Amino acid sequence: MAVEIERKFLVTGDFRAEAHAQQRITQGYLSSVPERTVRVRIKGEQGFITVKGIGNASGASRYEWEREIPRAEAEALLALCEPGVIDKVRHLVTAGAHTFEVDEFFGDNQGLIVAEIELGHEDEDFLRPAWLGAEVTGEVRYYNSALMQNPFKNW
Amino acid sequence: MAVEIERKFLVTGDFRAEAHAQQRITQGYLSSVPERTVRVRIKGEQGFITVKGIGNASGASRYEWEREIPRAEAEALLALCEPGVIDKVRHLVTAGAHTFEVDEFFGDNQGLIVAEIELGHEDEDFLRPAWLGAEVTGEVRYYNSALMQNPFKNW
Repeated sequence: MAVEIERKFLVTGDFRAEAHAQQRITQGYLSSVPERTVRVRIKGEQGFITVKGIGNASGASRYEWEREIPRAEAEALLALCEPGVIDKVRHLVTAGAHTFEVDEFFGDNQGLIVAEIELGHEDEDFLRPAWLGAEVTGEVRYYNSALMQNPFKNW
Repeated sequence: MAVEIERKFLVTGDFRAEAHAQQRITQGYLSSVPERTVRVRIKGEQGFITVKGIGNASGASRYEWEREIPRAEAEALLALCEPGVIDKVRHLVTAGAHTFEVDEFFGDNQGLIVAEIELGHEDEDFLRPAWLGAEVTGEVRYYNSALMQNPFKNW
């Protein structure tokens, strides 16, 4: 269990030329209650179960507990999840000393692209690439758990 | 992920002389939704995270996935759980080829004692001790997750 410090931004320009890796991610939620989300994720051949608390006042810090599990177990748990699944491709983009995780959503969230950066502390500086748009850190509707219940296509 | 076949009974007589072990259990729920409960349990020095589906038609079979985790992680996850905690002592009572888990509840569920037996298949025979009362298999209000929300003292 650790506190994860992340800031999240919309992506409004072309980041693709700078991406050095891509991975398909599918995930569902055993609980999408923001105070205690329980996520089941499949990333390539890996499975994960992840528990997150709600953000602090700034929204940048959230408790997070994660355990890797066999992909087959993750698939069985996904079948138990709340209806709906998040389907996205995660692109990794290096910018200075940091790496942005740029999530391009599909399905009911097609058209939404967000970038997350993990920081050592909330005030840490970082390079802002030209494709980085408005900050949405802490906005609950951008939580993946919320996107499952109220997807981008309905906004 | 396996299917757990269990039958559950009220306890209406004195089982204590037949018990051969006791252990204190405290547990909370990251999700108490019956279709996909996510339980955090502390049992002695062990911690566990457990996901269960809802029962089948008879209520005796439920999907269950469990992973042991360090006690310290379980304590941190308990702090994230829904309000309320289940506090009980589990007594083990052997009867013929089977072992009953007899759960004696405290706190808001004081006065409730239930016995569970795990079976290889739903029709498997077993000895019924004199202290075994009415069967409550599959009755959702006896799920520990439901007892947290609507405890025995309110019945």
